[in-house]
Amino acid sequence: MTKAKYSSELLSAAVEEFSSLPGIGERTALRLVLFLLKKEKDDAQRFSSTLKDLFDNVRFCKRCFNISDSDLCSICNTTSRDKQTICVVENIKDVMSIEQTQQYNGQYHVLNGVISPMEGIGPGDLNIDSLVQRIGGEDIKEVILALSTTMEGDTTNFYIYKKLLPTNVKVTVIARGISVGNELEYTDEVTLGRSIINRHLFDNANNK
Amino acid sequence: MTKAKYSSELLSAAVEEFSSLPGIGERTALRLVLFLLKKEKDDAQRFSSTLKDLFDNVRFCKRCFNISDSDLCSICNTTSRDKQTICVVENIKDVMSIEQTQQYNGQYHVLNGVISPMEGIGPGDLNIDSLVQRIGGEDIKEVILALSTTMEGDTTNFYIYKKLLPTNVKVTVIARGISVGNELEYTDEVTLGRSIINRHLFDNANNK
Repeated sequence: MTKAKYSSELLSAAVEEFSSLPGIGERTALRLVLFLLKKEKDDAQRFSSTLKDLFDNVRFCKRCFNISDSDLCSICNTTSRDKQTICVVENIKDVMSIEQTQQYNGQYHVLNGVISPMEGIGPGDLNIDSLVQRIGGEDIKEVILALSTTMEGDTTNFYIYKKLLPTNVKVTVIARGISVGNELEYTDEVTLGRSIINRHLFDNANNK
Repeated sequence: MTKAKYSSELLSAAVEEFSSLPGIGERTALRLVLFLLKKEKDDAQRFSSTLKDLFDNVRFCKRCFNISDSDLCSICNTTSRDKQTICVVENIKDVMSIEQTQQYNGQYHVLNGVISPMEGIGPGDLNIDSLVQRIGGEDIKEVILALSTTMEGDTTNFYIYKKLLPTNVKVTVIARGISVGNELEYTDEVTLGRSIINRHLFDNANNK
């Protein structure tokens, strides 16, 4: 994009910033910036100041590495949650996804990625050592591994499992199988095959 | 959206701001904010400061009401453009669209809307008086009306035409007809009918 395209350099710069966002092309960027310009000046300025606030002040929880406004995130800080279970996830988005299910009431630990030799990410780049330290320091009964069901996720699962073996903590992994609502006919064969291997006793309470 | 949804109030606020943009839902907003958070801190801060800069300093050209960084926009300021032709458009986006065609080298006048009784927009809400003043004050030979081909656009065209009658300036309107590349079969009947009424002598030079 040439800077001289619009009659305002300020506009060009703002459009360029918006176009750098994923999935936002130049046309959409222009539409968004013009929309903000049409707003009341206070509203528009609040938009930029809210972002500035976030970038200046955002922190990550010292304990679980979730996004936070203070040293400890709201999940670590609350007393109403189970303190003896840690759910290990790849990133803060996964924390949000699991929280939305409202099926989990324990702690989290955000790895900030998975082991991926292809991308040059080794165990040292992830928050794994701090997880091991937590198991040693806190009274933890169970670690739930909730990583992606990819080769990298499986590798990371196995690495963490081996690391935690000496601590004798119970290590579980989230269930893999056919998605709720899916028909067998349209399920890929690997998932279907695994779901047969991992079959379990019929339990009416869980069969929903 | 409840504010407590994310473990960071700052994040929630930023996501809320992004979700207020047209065509951006809460999921996309979250994705965009997390993308910005993953960037280098300098890059992320530049995003908000560029926007702040725009909202604080943007102005509109005193002559043509196009978006501008100074009192006169770059189009009004340049000496290389035809000073005797004014193209009347609805908004600054239309200026950009026409500039992109590279077929026009004159001045502009941004009305900032069209007459629309339904939305309570009358001639007094638009930059029409300033247009009439420009015709009186500057040496203008032609006014090109380039508004939308809607009922409101037609009404505004006619209003401006009547207003400019006493000035004896030449008033033209952009051609309406079948879009280049369209097949007759798929052209709506109003457009097709109009294009027959407005037929003109075959001119090989323009037949591209």
